[in-house]
Amino acid sequence: MCQLLGMNCNTPTDIVFSFEGFHRRGGLTDEHADGWGIAFFEDDGCRVFLDYLPSARSPVAELVRNYPIKSRNVIAHIRKATQGKVSLANTHPFRRELWGQDWLFAHNGNLVDLPESFACTHGSRFQRVGTTDSEQAFCWMLNRLAEQFTRAPDLATLTTAVRALTAELAGHGTFNFLLSNGTALFAHCSTHLYYVLRRAPFNTAHLADADVTVDFAQVTTPDDRVAVIATQPLTDNEQWTPMTTGQLLVFADGALAG
Amino acid sequence: MCQLLGMNCNTPTDIVFSFEGFHRRGGLTDEHADGWGIAFFEDDGCRVFLDYLPSARSPVAELVRNYPIKSRNVIAHIRKATQGKVSLANTHPFRRELWGQDWLFAHNGNLVDLPESFACTHGSRFQRVGTTDSEQAFCWMLNRLAEQFTRAPDLATLTTAVRALTAELAGHGTFNFLLSNGTALFAHCSTHLYYVLRRAPFNTAHLADADVTVDFAQVTTPDDRVAVIATQPLTDNEQWTPMTTGQLLVFADGALAG
Repeated sequence: MCQLLGMNCNTPTDIVFSFEGFHRRGGLTDEHADGWGIAFFEDDGCRVFLDYLPSARSPVAELVRNYPIKSRNVIAHIRKATQGKVSLANTHPFRRELWGQDWLFAHNGNLVDLPESFACTHGSRFQRVGTTDSEQAFCWMLNRLAEQFTRAPDLATLTTAVRALTAELAGHGTFNFLLSNGTALFAHCSTHLYYVLRRAPFNTAHLADADVTVDFAQVTTPDDRVAVIATQPLTDNEQWTPMTTGQLLVFADGALAG
Repeated sequence: MCQLLGMNCNTPTDIVFSFEGFHRRGGLTDEHADGWGIAFFEDDGCRVFLDYLPSARSPVAELVRNYPIKSRNVIAHIRKATQGKVSLANTHPFRRELWGQDWLFAHNGNLVDLPESFACTHGSRFQRVGTTDSEQAFCWMLNRLAEQFTRAPDLATLTTAVRALTAELAGHGTFNFLLSNGTALFAHCSTHLYYVLRRAPFNTAHLADADVTVDFAQVTTPDDRVAVIATQPLTDNEQWTPMTTGQLLVFADGALAG
């Protein structure tokens, strides 16, 4: 299985602290060494950094560790291959454009024997480039959303649609995922996903994967709100809330929405 | 105007030498300082590195200079903004998926007052995320290709289609571009575009933008073929062929195709 990391904020925030611990899980403190990726929404665009080297020794991870990119929505993924070989085409997060918005998706789990009705074949608007079940599920969700809405609906309507599509896929295996269009971040839990909501008064946090501490009070303003979502808690002195099986949460502006 | 760089090869090749000269044009040896990007097709996937900092002092450019990524198709772009603010959403190369293939596009020029018929509005399959004429032109071309073909046609058929779509757009301004689906690289010239074809016997090349020399005989095999395309020649001791106004060339396997 893979490792997921998401961040949703009400003000552009860098993820250097969380990534410092997270990237070690790709070959150092954990075995997930089949490539990794991180995607940042910034302003009205986004950029994705990918590498098929383990994140613990990737030059691209080294850049991300040292380049404090400020973003309101981040999705990162460390891969332990279940379906599809180790290659760039199979590296999460996956990205597509729908309604003039960038969409990003990363998956931890395994969808087995998806029925033919989930195929994205010739003629489908969104088709996978690689060979993973994850990218197939993402494309299938976007195809259905594109059929239902010719333009971006409001968040409540979108959430209802994503929830219904998620339920259809989740019956076919393990389907922990993070999905974002740059404003909201959707998180679905099949087995393992935790979140923490940070807001004033800010405290000191200590990483679980490295002996690194940060005092958030020094790097925030009183209005900042940050939600962090991860497969396993990233810090060992904060209260992380476990998500339950089948739960879909939506984060917007650093808080739970809806 | 912007600076374009493309590379098409018959074997995965790193672009470190060419990029060493090219990246200096973003703020050092030239004025194009409104962001930059480079995209590499690798194996069956691709990855795009973007930054809105000038390439001459971008941490992402520093990574690309020092990480010899081997690729058969590369497109890079340094931006001098004409339409659209300096932001990630307006940074080339642009990327979309069509027929299960990644497509990349970068543009040097300015398309002014594109008629309504070129708009990619609500309901269009491909829509721009940013505000540039360049991304609009790319989306319009992909919308037309998607209408014409439900799956990827052969290269000759694709070239005919791209040529016709290019002619429609080129009447509306300056339209130097590089376009690739990972197998072929299309290059269109309105004003400035040069190419060089490298094959055995390989010689020594010297950059025009820096006092750097490489002996290609030391880093190639006799079967290697590499095509490099750029807004201005990157080396000062090789024979670069200027493209002519309205010319569309297709490079495949490091040579001219068709």
